[in-house]
Amino acid sequence: MKPTVVREKEELRRFCNEARAQGKLVGFVPTMGALHEGHLSLMREAKRAGADFVVVSIFVNPMQFGANEDLDRYPRTFEADLEACEREGVSLVFAPTNESMYGPNFESHVEVESLTLPLEGVHRPGHFRGVTTIVAKLFNLLGPCLAVFGKKDLQQALIIERMVADLDMPVEIILAPTAREADGLALSSRNRYLSAEERERGLSISRGLRAAYDAFHQGERDVARLSALVREAIEPHADSIDYAAVVHKASLTADGDNADDLVGIVAARFGNTRLIDNCIFAEDRRP
Amino acid sequence: MKPTVVREKEELRRFCNEARAQGKLVGFVPTMGALHEGHLSLMREAKRAGADFVVVSIFVNPMQFGANEDLDRYPRTFEADLEACEREGVSLVFAPTNESMYGPNFESHVEVESLTLPLEGVHRPGHFRGVTTIVAKLFNLLGPCLAVFGKKDLQQALIIERMVADLDMPVEIILAPTAREADGLALSSRNRYLSAEERERGLSISRGLRAAYDAFHQGERDVARLSALVREAIEPHADSIDYAAVVHKASLTADGDNADDLVGIVAARFGNTRLIDNCIFAEDRRP
Repeated sequence: MKPTVVREKEELRRFCNEARAQGKLVGFVPTMGALHEGHLSLMREAKRAGADFVVVSIFVNPMQFGANEDLDRYPRTFEADLEACEREGVSLVFAPTNESMYGPNFESHVEVESLTLPLEGVHRPGHFRGVTTIVAKLFNLLGPCLAVFGKKDLQQALIIERMVADLDMPVEIILAPTAREADGLALSSRNRYLSAEERERGLSISRGLRAAYDAFHQGERDVARLSALVREAIEPHADSIDYAAVVHKASLTADGDNADDLVGIVAARFGNTRLIDNCIFAEDRRP
Repeated sequence: MKPTVVREKEELRRFCNEARAQGKLVGFVPTMGALHEGHLSLMREAKRAGADFVVVSIFVNPMQFGANEDLDRYPRTFEADLEACEREGVSLVFAPTNESMYGPNFESHVEVESLTLPLEGVHRPGHFRGVTTIVAKLFNLLGPCLAVFGKKDLQQALIIERMVADLDMPVEIILAPTAREADGLALSSRNRYLSAEERERGLSISRGLRAAYDAFHQGERDVARLSALVREAIEPHADSIDYAAVVHKASLTADGDNADDLVGIVAARFGNTRLIDNCIFAEDRRP
């Protein structure tokens, strides 16, 4: 059955309230569209967790893009996205306009403080404020639900978890594993921009994470040595590196009490395309 | 019947969900305790608007007090507050501890941008961030409800309205008129600090607002002339004035398109006590 497509906020609220009144559990997968297998795995994760009314939002949120970023060229594939949602048994697709999400006097935001500062926070100032604000709005429209976020955007996922805990939002957050191609490349809507040659060089990211993962599982806990393994694998191949490091998951910095709580995390450019990836060594599969 | 006293967040959420499941409309009056007739009028307003499960929160929120403000000496009168809630037919009193509201890693906030900058924003930096954050938390715990705020704290009330609209919170905001003594003094938990002589001088605030109100209703629309009426009434009597002005309600500054949309608004000190008051000339009763 085709998912119901909803454009208006109040209609979304009404559908979710009705679903709950029928005893259904609302599951939510927020996306910017250009859906790939990674997104579909989040929808399946929502169902596996018990959601029987799955809502997918498709909204390229201008508030989370910087002035020099790829908002205008971000891929839009709405018809294909709808078909994918239908195949996954999604109940409702919410695809609002910018105008309906941000009125002319809009001037509020939700922000998480420390966790937003390192890594992406250094390179995309304001990005996470845009993310937490739109996600808070969507949570407020949907009402109590479970929401699935991909570990591919690990810093984002950890920030959302913190926002929900700090602000007492009635949402259960589920983090789903990163989907990868057979050769290790993490799935991303931006992969379609890569030339074959850039894609080949881009594999250095998962290779670097894999090297650190292997060292971790052989007992290495030195953050500097693990970081070097990640960085040295990527440096010869990337056009530039925003960060390529091993950090503590709790702080997303080199500071932390728990020696086992380590994450390899990378953002690097190949041609004009910025790729991100990460691995929680103690928890995730080998990249 | 005595209201149920709840200390734990999840218990509050459960009671509100149960009330809604029974078809009740949850009404919410957030307070810092030290309840006076002004607060009680908000509870009655909630009932008048249809709420049949009224929740009053009593929480002196440390996040909205500055370092040099009166957090420690803010009045606490819990037993009397409970009795007042019982008399008003309040269903539930939520009185959490600081620790249960702010965990050790708390690092999130909700903020409204422009409306928080003038007036109180100049004199109490961070205050409104503390207010919007705690109110967002409480709204998230209560779920869909109507919430009543007093016009006495006009800037706060307008900021909350904006937050709810911008962030799509499922809350209907009702603004209730300022309760005054027969001689015009606006009710406030802080009035108990005033000596008889300070209280007498404090009446200059409502006198100033009244002078501007009368001029407005005789056709005066010049913001500078109206401001002078407010300020000149107070200046000889206050120990200091943070602000005493007439501003446009939409911006809370002297800038605005709508000549009728004017508010007299004051914060001034009498002895150690800081009083605030205001009047929306086209809408409120004569102060």
